[in-house]
Amino acid sequence: MLRIRRCTYYKQYPFIDQITSLEKYTDLLKIESQFMKNKIIMIPHGSFVAYLGKDYDTKTVFPYFGNKKILEIEADRDLQNNWLVDSGLPTPRVFNNINSVDRPVIVKTYGAKGGYGYTLCPDKKKLKEAIAKFSGEKTIIQEYIVGTPVYIQFFYSPTDNKLEILGVDRRYETNVDGIGRIPQAFQKELFTNPSFTVIGNFPVVLRESLLPKIYGFGQSLVKSSQRLAPPRGLYGPFCLETVIDGEMNIYAIEISCRIVAGTNLFINGSFYSDFLYDKPVSTGRRIAMEIKNAIKKNKLNKILN
Amino acid sequence: MLRIRRCTYYKQYPFIDQITSLEKYTDLLKIESQFMKNKIIMIPHGSFVAYLGKDYDTKTVFPYFGNKKILEIEADRDLQNNWLVDSGLPTPRVFNNINSVDRPVIVKTYGAKGGYGYTLCPDKKKLKEAIAKFSGEKTIIQEYIVGTPVYIQFFYSPTDNKLEILGVDRRYETNVDGIGRIPQAFQKELFTNPSFTVIGNFPVVLRESLLPKIYGFGQSLVKSSQRLAPPRGLYGPFCLETVIDGEMNIYAIEISCRIVAGTNLFINGSFYSDFLYDKPVSTGRRIAMEIKNAIKKNKLNKILN
Amino acid sequence: MLRIRRCTYYKQYPFIDQITSLEKYTDLLKIESQFMKNKIIMIPHGSFVAYLGKDYDTKTVFPYFGNKKILEIEADRDLQNNWLVDSGLPTPRVFNNINSVDRPVIVKTYGAKGGYGYTLCPDKKKLKEAIAKFSGEKTIIQEYIVGTPVYIQFFYSPTDNKLEILGVDRRYETNVDGIGRIPQAFQKELFTNPSFTVIGNFPVVLRESLLPKIYGFGQSLVKSSQRLAPPRGLYGPFCLETVIDGEMNIYAIEISCRIVAGTNLFINGSFYSDFLYDKPVSTGRRIAMEIKNAIKKNKLNKILN
Repeated sequence: MLRIRRCTYYKQYPFIDQITSLEKYTDLLKIESQFMKNKIIMIPHGSFVAYLGKDYDTKTVFPYFGNKKILEIEADRDLQNNWLVDSGLPTPRVFNNINSVDRPVIVKTYGAKGGYGYTLCPDKKKLKEAIAKFSGEKTIIQEYIVGTPVYIQFFYSPTDNKLEILGVDRRYETNVDGIGRIPQAFQKELFTNPSFTVIGNFPVVLRESLLPKIYGFGQSLVKSSQRLAPPRGLYGPFCLETVIDGEMNIYAIEISCRIVAGTNLFINGSFYSDFLYDKPVSTGRRIAMEIKNAIKKNKLNKILN
Repeated sequence: MLRIRRCTYYKQYPFIDQITSLEKYTDLLKIESQFMKNKIIMIPHGSFVAYLGKDYDTKTVFPYFGNKKILEIEADRDLQNNWLVDSGLPTPRVFNNINSVDRPVIVKTYGAKGGYGYTLCPDKKKLKEAIAKFSGEKTIIQEYIVGTPVYIQFFYSPTDNKLEILGVDRRYETNVDGIGRIPQAFQKELFTNPSFTVIGNFPVVLRESLLPKIYGFGQSLVKSSQRLAPPRGLYGPFCLETVIDGEMNIYAIEISCRIVAGTNLFINGSFYSDFLYDKPVSTGRRIAMEIKNAIKKNKLNKILN
Repeated sequence: MLRIRRCTYYKQYPFIDQITSLEKYTDLLKIESQFMKNKIIMIPHGSFVAYLGKDYDTKTVFPYFGNKKILEIEADRDLQNNWLVDSGLPTPRVFNNINSVDRPVIVKTYGAKGGYGYTLCPDKKKLKEAIAKFSGEKTIIQEYIVGTPVYIQFFYSPTDNKLEILGVDRRYETNVDGIGRIPQAFQKELFTNPSFTVIGNFPVVLRESLLPKIYGFGQSLVKSSQRLAPPRGLYGPFCLETVIDGEMNIYAIEISCRIVAGTNLFINGSFYSDFLYDKPVSTGRRIAMEIKNAIKKNKLNKILN
């Protein structure tokens, strides 16, 4: 039923050449070979990585655009956090045990996808409840930064050795983004714990003076990734989740090392890509441009895995 | 004064061929005939329907794009809600009398336009006050869903029998969208009841996995409308108001069966219309395309009333 | 370090012909002459005005686009407020001394830039604390209007004597726009006073019926400016900050008489400029069009200072 609904939806789009519907993600492994003759290149996206898990990393044979070694780092919240710290980015404090927590925190399981399951804990009592709820699951306990969330959509070209900002967005999360519409006098009756499930994205343009700093963050991440996942490190599209506080400090919260949903806002180019290109360049198109450029320069093997 | 100001405003736009200013909406009925020779087609919009009321439905002779039978259903909040339920869409619970209310609700009068007059009632006391305030007016008492509001801009083409998503937005409502900027410690001094007056719209792109479901909602609405307002049912542009809760349940709240204000965001195309067309397609342009297509296929009578 | 980072950032953009990095803003005065032979026209922007201060107004010799007399009015919060009132725009009440304050207010220093340092005071106690904190600095005490902030991006062409709306946005302010994501039950632990530091902008399209009124505001501002800073008054890009309350009253809060950051959203045109022009017109491009038009009409001296 869900599969039929999905096929119906995607069939309406004239730019899609072929739709293949699978019962489950891992069925991809069974049909890979029949596509190999078409010289397909796989473009990793979030669900893909989430649902195939380690199989995606180790078992798929499709040539794909990106560095598989980076996936392992991203998937492990501790490794990911170390990478951010290692890159010199300001990050929220991470607490290794409950007793050392001395401020409001947010608890995230390793498996949490799209913000689902994130739990905000203003005090020890709530924190203990959250940890009990997640018993057995690996979690990270992160300081909660009060401020405004901003997501930076980067692209790093290994062919041209160039970093670009292709877009910026702000996630639309439920029900946490509905709280601000409820007077405090009514909140008691209306809900207890906020949830952080991502259901969409808003475009947002950044204060210009923040951009050089954020661009530097991107450069540092690429550079340190080349030590952590040598030799290629991080390349292609990636997205840095930040929170900016009232003193304009920018904190790096999480990183996604692939095309993200927020890029859907800019399929006809963005206020940032328009500064770089004379044509509308989405992240999808940017990937295609990179692949074509690599073919032209005889460097395709440098960007595929 | 207001008329002069409005004329001044619209006169600056070079694409407007002719401006006719009327003292009141119903004066339209007096001048219709003089426009008939120009083969005008009326495109219904919200204010039009709101201010002309039933006269619009029964007295205007302009050929217009849309099904007048649908207007009656939309204008009656109970009929409208029955339609949503009949289409199989999840809807907030509706309470037929005050005594059965067991949760926070929002009270809406039948005549409320653009969110004006909506009243959020967290408890029985507030509910009784709201009902007293609206005494005499017909109202609907709707469960208040905590979550994130999202408005889906659809277009159904009867000529090609095809449903499209042309855009998605989130309304900007005052003062309810100002509440989130006031610390709870300050709220007591600053306001009592939130209002929901729409003053604008933000563009928002949806989590991709929600789209097939929402597209299915649109298909169900078109289908059931053909039973409720036979034979043509709902066609042309329509907008579904939804709220998505923390578990990603999508609730259908209201429906507008005409072009809506949120489409103004996408007059140069949207992140959804760009997937369907190689040129920028606004909802206005989509209507023009539909009419031209119907003329070409000799089906104009199928889409006009 | 900051200068190197900034140069690195701007060097990536192919449309920038030349980058000159200065140690401090006032160094501009030293190098002006060497640029004069290139027939440079200076386009004022916010940081420029903020950091050069009165030197900008009196010492720079670059021909520049805009009326320097307007800068003095804008820089003085009392003069600015008088101008808004003088133009007939509804404004929040301004209190000349603490004792007369009878409602929640926001305190702004004269030097506050980008919202930094604005202080919301719900009561006398908080107000006294705020005034004490700002001791010595000139401040304005403004009634706090509960509602939705909206920023109107205007352009007035003295060459064609025509006012245009080129865009509308809503600022993204930290941490005040993060408050709505924190349940009231958690707020006590998480922060005390909200800050209003601007870190970005969202695009927003306005309810159509508000536009003629807002357009009239722009016309009134231009007209009264010609009395206050004769003979030319205000021209080129300017931005009106408004708050719209639950009764749809539009209050004028502040005005910026130059290109503003929010225009970055619309570098490829906006939902408003697209109604006026057949090509994408950003505010930057609009300025260039004005200059070229003035050259063609031999009126360059009318728009430069």
